[in-house]
Amino acid sequence: MGIKTSEEYLASLKKQTPEVYIGGEKIHDVVNNKYFRISLEEMCKFHDWANDPEKEKDFVFWSPLVEDKVTFWTHLRQTTDEVQRLLEVMKKNNARNFCSMCMITGLNVLWAVTYDIDKARGTKYHERLKTFFRELQTNDFRYCMGVMDPKGDRSLPPSRQADPDLYLRIVEKSKDGIIVNGAKMHTSDAPITHFIFTCPSGVLREADKDYAVSFAVPVDTKGIKFITRPAPGPLAPREMESPVSSHIGFVECLTVFDNVFVPWERVFMCGEWEFTENLISYFSPYVRICKGTCTSARTDILAGAAALISHYNGTDRASHIKSKITDMMISSEIGWGCALASVSKSVMHESGIPIPDTSISNAGLYNSRLKFIEFLGTLQEIAGGIVTTMPAESEYLNEESRAYIDKYLKGRKDVPTKDRLKLLYFIQDLTASRFGGYLTASAICAGGTPETNRVEVFRSYNLLDQIKNVKELCNIK
Amino acid sequence: MGIKTSEEYLASLKKQTPEVYIGGEKIHDVVNNKYFRISLEEMCKFHDWANDPEKEKDFVFWSPLVEDKVTFWTHLRQTTDEVQRLLEVMKKNNARNFCSMCMITGLNVLWAVTYDIDKARGTKYHERLKTFFRELQTNDFRYCMGVMDPKGDRSLPPSRQADPDLYLRIVEKSKDGIIVNGAKMHTSDAPITHFIFTCPSGVLREADKDYAVSFAVPVDTKGIKFITRPAPGPLAPREMESPVSSHIGFVECLTVFDNVFVPWERVFMCGEWEFTENLISYFSPYVRICKGTCTSARTDILAGAAALISHYNGTDRASHIKSKITDMMISSEIGWGCALASVSKSVMHESGIPIPDTSISNAGLYNSRLKFIEFLGTLQEIAGGIVTTMPAESEYLNEESRAYIDKYLKGRKDVPTKDRLKLLYFIQDLTASRFGGYLTASAICAGGTPETNRVEVFRSYNLLDQIKNVKELCNIK
Amino acid sequence: MGIKTSEEYLASLKKQTPEVYIGGEKIHDVVNNKYFRISLEEMCKFHDWANDPEKEKDFVFWSPLVEDKVTFWTHLRQTTDEVQRLLEVMKKNNARNFCSMCMITGLNVLWAVTYDIDKARGTKYHERLKTFFRELQTNDFRYCMGVMDPKGDRSLPPSRQADPDLYLRIVEKSKDGIIVNGAKMHTSDAPITHFIFTCPSGVLREADKDYAVSFAVPVDTKGIKFITRPAPGPLAPREMESPVSSHIGFVECLTVFDNVFVPWERVFMCGEWEFTENLISYFSPYVRICKGTCTSARTDILAGAAALISHYNGTDRASHIKSKITDMMISSEIGWGCALASVSKSVMHESGIPIPDTSISNAGLYNSRLKFIEFLGTLQEIAGGIVTTMPAESEYLNEESRAYIDKYLKGRKDVPTKDRLKLLYFIQDLTASRFGGYLTASAICAGGTPETNRVEVFRSYNLLDQIKNVKELCNIK
Amino acid sequence: MGIKTSEEYLASLKKQTPEVYIGGEKIHDVVNNKYFRISLEEMCKFHDWANDPEKEKDFVFWSPLVEDKVTFWTHLRQTTDEVQRLLEVMKKNNARNFCSMCMITGLNVLWAVTYDIDKARGTKYHERLKTFFRELQTNDFRYCMGVMDPKGDRSLPPSRQADPDLYLRIVEKSKDGIIVNGAKMHTSDAPITHFIFTCPSGVLREADKDYAVSFAVPVDTKGIKFITRPAPGPLAPREMESPVSSHIGFVECLTVFDNVFVPWERVFMCGEWEFTENLISYFSPYVRICKGTCTSARTDILAGAAALISHYNGTDRASHIKSKITDMMISSEIGWGCALASVSKSVMHESGIPIPDTSISNAGLYNSRLKFIEFLGTLQEIAGGIVTTMPAESEYLNEESRAYIDKYLKGRKDVPTKDRLKLLYFIQDLTASRFGGYLTASAICAGGTPETNRVEVFRSYNLLDQIKNVKELCNIK
Repeated sequence: MGIKTSEEYLASLKKQTPEVYIGGEKIHDVVNNKYFRISLEEMCKFHDWANDPEKEKDFVFWSPLVEDKVTFWTHLRQTTDEVQRLLEVMKKNNARNFCSMCMITGLNVLWAVTYDIDKARGTKYHERLKTFFRELQTNDFRYCMGVMDPKGDRSLPPSRQADPDLYLRIVEKSKDGIIVNGAKMHTSDAPITHFIFTCPSGVLREADKDYAVSFAVPVDTKGIKFITRPAPGPLAPREMESPVSSHIGFVECLTVFDNVFVPWERVFMCGEWEFTENLISYFSPYVRICKGTCTSARTDILAGAAALISHYNGTDRASHIKSKITDMMISSEIGWGCALASVSKSVMHESGIPIPDTSISNAGLYNSRLKFIEFLGTLQEIAGGIVTTMPAESEYLNEESRAYIDKYLKGRKDVPTKDRLKLLYFIQDLTASRFGGYLTASAICAGGTPETNRVEVFRSYNLLDQIKNVKELCNIK
Repeated sequence: MGIKTSEEYLASLKKQTPEVYIGGEKIHDVVNNKYFRISLEEMCKFHDWANDPEKEKDFVFWSPLVEDKVTFWTHLRQTTDEVQRLLEVMKKNNARNFCSMCMITGLNVLWAVTYDIDKARGTKYHERLKTFFRELQTNDFRYCMGVMDPKGDRSLPPSRQADPDLYLRIVEKSKDGIIVNGAKMHTSDAPITHFIFTCPSGVLREADKDYAVSFAVPVDTKGIKFITRPAPGPLAPREMESPVSSHIGFVECLTVFDNVFVPWERVFMCGEWEFTENLISYFSPYVRICKGTCTSARTDILAGAAALISHYNGTDRASHIKSKITDMMISSEIGWGCALASVSKSVMHESGIPIPDTSISNAGLYNSRLKFIEFLGTLQEIAGGIVTTMPAESEYLNEESRAYIDKYLKGRKDVPTKDRLKLLYFIQDLTASRFGGYLTASAICAGGTPETNRVEVFRSYNLLDQIKNVKELCNIK
Repeated sequence: MGIKTSEEYLASLKKQTPEVYIGGEKIHDVVNNKYFRISLEEMCKFHDWANDPEKEKDFVFWSPLVEDKVTFWTHLRQTTDEVQRLLEVMKKNNARNFCSMCMITGLNVLWAVTYDIDKARGTKYHERLKTFFRELQTNDFRYCMGVMDPKGDRSLPPSRQADPDLYLRIVEKSKDGIIVNGAKMHTSDAPITHFIFTCPSGVLREADKDYAVSFAVPVDTKGIKFITRPAPGPLAPREMESPVSSHIGFVECLTVFDNVFVPWERVFMCGEWEFTENLISYFSPYVRICKGTCTSARTDILAGAAALISHYNGTDRASHIKSKITDMMISSEIGWGCALASVSKSVMHESGIPIPDTSISNAGLYNSRLKFIEFLGTLQEIAGGIVTTMPAESEYLNEESRAYIDKYLKGRKDVPTKDRLKLLYFIQDLTASRFGGYLTASAICAGGTPETNRVEVFRSYNLLDQIKNVKELCNIK
Repeated sequence: MGIKTSEEYLASLKKQTPEVYIGGEKIHDVVNNKYFRISLEEMCKFHDWANDPEKEKDFVFWSPLVEDKVTFWTHLRQTTDEVQRLLEVMKKNNARNFCSMCMITGLNVLWAVTYDIDKARGTKYHERLKTFFRELQTNDFRYCMGVMDPKGDRSLPPSRQADPDLYLRIVEKSKDGIIVNGAKMHTSDAPITHFIFTCPSGVLREADKDYAVSFAVPVDTKGIKFITRPAPGPLAPREMESPVSSHIGFVECLTVFDNVFVPWERVFMCGEWEFTENLISYFSPYVRICKGTCTSARTDILAGAAALISHYNGTDRASHIKSKITDMMISSEIGWGCALASVSKSVMHESGIPIPDTSISNAGLYNSRLKFIEFLGTLQEIAGGIVTTMPAESEYLNEESRAYIDKYLKGRKDVPTKDRLKLLYFIQDLTASRFGGYLTASAICAGGTPETNRVEVFRSYNLLDQIKNVKELCNIK
């Protein structure tokens, strides 16, 4: 059945034996490893949502593919309404939980591009993919999208790198399948999912056709190695000092494919370099609407934190404080508005899924992600220098020093010092910690960079039409 | 029938005798007055569009109110699809013609607020308004919205001004109607429309109830005086030097109501100050989606002009030029995206019209209008200092000097100097002329200012929800 | 003697017969031509300053070159104190008069580069230049710097243009002098000065050596043609509607050199292309400190206008108004501060003049010039939409309409409507007129563009030092 | 003698017994406490500089007060040249070492304000201060400025707080001295200095006169308690992963004064609330020039890191990369330029020290500190998402995983992976760590916030002059 409990999820992980490097060691049991605590807790939370009757509307769907209920994380969205609903859930949910694991939209992208290839080439990728999706849905499997290649010298294409493995590539084909070599970067939480799913990270030319490869394999497939870093939060929860990062965060991986065999039934692209342009053009708006929505929702958190700490500090009526919070609101609405508008201007792909508008989604995200960085500073300004100079939690736990902290770190008289301190630690967690650094990175680098957004707007905007208009306005023939 | 030709329109104007002050004189015949040339030409153009079979799809609608075809400028939009279509037309049209006369959306606002008043008070405003709309539609009448009051000392409400007339107000009520005194500002093109339509410009309190007045009167009603300034373009067309402002632009008016009588059947609000809050809350998103779309479309013009002049100058491959044009594109997409999203998040008003989202529309417009100002400078940078130092058209018409101009103002060798010059004059018209000043004003002050946008975002954003989320994230009870 | 009165200045102009194209005609008498009224008035004002005992400290200097008093406009600044004093005068003066004619700093640049050439090549340019400067100083002559070439296709260097004359060039050398052909752009007020002084507009390579030419010639030299446009203000003064542009503004010229002969004693560079790099590197900081100071001073005007109109409107206590005026102040201080700092970090050139810092001066100007554009919009926002919709001056002069204007355009009760109107017209003159367009152009394009500033900062900043620091910080060998 | 070695410094600390709360314990021996390792190392480094003959020019000065050599950290700067030299040292030094401990400028501020009080009141504060400075200089003592009060509810002045101790105050005066109660925030590194030196944190009114207190006391004075947090770096150095934060960073303290006695000879203000305005007006420009210089220098580090990582990644020739680095350069130059200009516009205070310009210094800092925050994101964009997803140092130390890291995290072929990794960890240390959070805080909150800068520019800018200019330009009487 298509919805697992968190217990079932953990049980399923225990059956897997991925090769994981963490804390200086090689391990195979992720479930009982301290470095995975935070990320597993977060993944279990997602499973719990799908089993929570109050959240069913948001996280459970009827899938025509399997004629059963499936979860938010395996459901294929086939209408603009479904895509908009996905965003509505993310908007609400990320403003409380930071993340909803939105890589599900990668399904849509591969759905469309495999259709294109089959149609042009008579291949069977789309049918295989459908079969695989049914397997995902039926078992409520999680998967990690491996998209970004290590890329080596960015001024050179894959085939001209000093080491040909710096982009994931096909090294051998046989009647049973293919052998691939290389690595994928930024494969968040991969060892605690069931499958790793790959596709090319950019548009390829003919010379790079061996790099045009997409497939899915179980995470404990021979030859796959996860070289990791733990989530940025503390090993043991610190509820006061690290209220968010104690519970939220990914184990990040460099995922190495050391001559990994993939059977044909799980290969979804194999050499069709001409279709990487489609792949990227479908990916772009899907990633941007998710990232735009997520950035908007996280900006909402900053706005809420700014409003609350200014209340605690007694500065909430200062006009510059209101103005700064208004800046946050504006940016949040722009990110959100452009994501919604991009969906509303979707075009339907022949395979039966909508492709949102590229230009609007990139424009909106571009604006909001840059503003998000500024707001991390703004939030510190509103909270005060105390964010990085206040005593450590250990001093609050020491009764002798606690008395002084209670006395001197008090804000408004009707707010307990402890509440103000909790909020200040929260703001530290967001803006002055390794987790805060991850929020910056997530805003700036995840889902393409601001520069990527610019390039895609330039490419997708209809400049020729405007040049024509201007010529007419000037009476230029 | 609901669609006039431009000839019929001019004929209808000739029958009117408004009291107009222009060029230092009082006149009553606007049709043959040189100062009205530009504005009449533009109004006729709008009429021609509605009679152009190729444009019918955009400018002609079936109105259930009169069971007949009506034009873009009198049609009541009753679904989100209709509102989105309105924006789509403006987006396309304003990128070529700068303006589509979008004050039609004022109809929707009054439609909703009269409904609210009647429902609460048992008045008959809504029915009267409907009757009046039928008259507008049947005769394809034009009207001008008189919204903004002169306002005197902005730190004081209407009833506390030194002169009580600084906001338009009811001075007398009788069984036949009301007498009003005061003025409305920024009543663009009013003397070449048929009706002037008023409503309050802000939220009023009980002390200001005499200022809570909305009505429509023919423009040549006794006591109405239009004190004007001509459109910013030249009196006679200068096709080369002023290609846009020779043909596009409003006569702007200070419209004085000197003890004007309004019969009850054309009064749509009379003292119901409590409903001015609804009025403004409906007005806000409608004005913002129109202004957001318009600013986006005008930004498209700037992008087209920037791209073309950089091509003529031989700088189109410079990365900083592309980057600057990309900035224009991004801003255009944000303004457009937020307008669309605002419509897609509309809520239906009980009276049968949609009210778009306030927060998203204000946020998007805020961003794009400020960027528009920057881009006027950017366009000059891309074009070069020549925009304000190139010889006047008279020197180009003088053959002796023309030879030197042709030789020395040449750009790329394959582009005639004359074309480059035309484009440079066009850019001058947009960025370094009285018309350019009007574009700035239109971006910054029309439809509320940037500060208004900020205030409305702050008010309509759900900050309490975010504060609640943050408290939960911090474990604060 | 080195200080002319304005009468003497006009008398000297009457003796000259430049070939000028203006208003569609060729003329030779500029003094009595209506199109020159504004620019002559401004030039006379400058002369009056030098003869005003109260302004002597700012505009009269002792010149060791001629051992006599000379004016601000011919004095060679030889110490950082003198350069700082030049800026102090501009800062104060431009905040009241918009312009002080700062091209005097071109003298310093040529002083240094001719010294360099002579030192390396044994030429006599520096001595000739000194002799010419003495002539300028003794006679208080005015001159125009002709720097910018027409440039044709900007993607090609001078020698590869389809027409070799698109940059000013040497076409013949003889024992008496040289013959030059080409044109210079943006030669403001050239026909009402005495000399036109040229130099290359960019760094040249060997293939372009014929373009490496600098010289001075009287403005009525045979073959020189001024193809012009009048100052942007009205032909006859309109004190109310155009208070600034009625009195301030340049006649702009395309100055053509049609096979013009220049005797050797007035040639200051002739083929020494290797020294154009020095020329530009000296020019850059001098132009930037002047432009930075000027932009700061003009921003001060905007701040003053914003403060005054907000007072008249009754909005001066609104926090967002104060905040916007603060933005203007900040930008003004940055432009001014970086100009001053650039001077304080000058290095002395061997020829005896200081060369200010390039990187700081470009950085400061970059910031302030872009902000200036934004502030034109800000000022309109603070003033209100009325700036471009208020009745024309002609309606204020018509007594019948004036009564209504006096009544309805009143702001605070203690401010006469006429004063508010004057201020609004002033703001229109600055932000919504051809003169306003010139202010934009002057901010953006005069003295190099923002992009030029960026390029020069990138070039002159010591990035290698920083890379070295970072390597050490990372323990990278 | 006025220059201690680091050994002598540590020896002097060992003689002190401050009451310090750290790591959940109360301690008295800071020298051997693990949590002080980083901060002590940094303090020793400063001492080493003063003893390094190559750095003597920057860090050793002749003091007329004691007629001996003293260090950078105790020397009183009495000319604009000395202040400029201070900034030059900070600029160079902070671009390599992040910090130079610039609180020395507090000496100048107290020097001037005590002079003012004595002159007006006949008190002896200035002489006492001079005596105390001689003690500092002779013994090369370090001190911490305790300026910022806890402040409680920011909407209330000190005397109206629910707890009167929320600002440090005089609770008793006797013939021997005073007793003070309260606390000071942000007292960086206080327990490893010799004296804590206090002054009010804002302008006070008469009702708050008990809060107008300035004094110096040894850090181990009875009643002083330091409630701390360690520097943000790791307890044991991690040279690869935390190259900066392993060695640089302050122990931050909440310093409590629990009924502390101060003898009169170390009291420098006692109730003279009228002079807090002078105090703040002297403090402001001194803090801003230091912070402006520091922010500029740290921006230089970001520019260097961006340039180097783009080289390693093969993206250094991309125009957008150069453009982003140029933005960093511009901001650095503006911060630096305005600091220098502020010094060059100093006015001499009667007490013999210069007071730099307030408006320019605040304007420059305002710009650069906000940009600094943006650049933290920019640097991540240029480096890539890898900054927060790359494997941990422990995986690089594990030979098995190291081989894969060496292979796959390679950038340009001529750069060892290890170097690239070191640089990426460095960038992580700056932008995605607790140390990075401190850099944000230091940019935004240290030395007053951006909003403080705005307020001070508004107050110190001469707006009345500009209003007067504008009135004249408009012919308004």
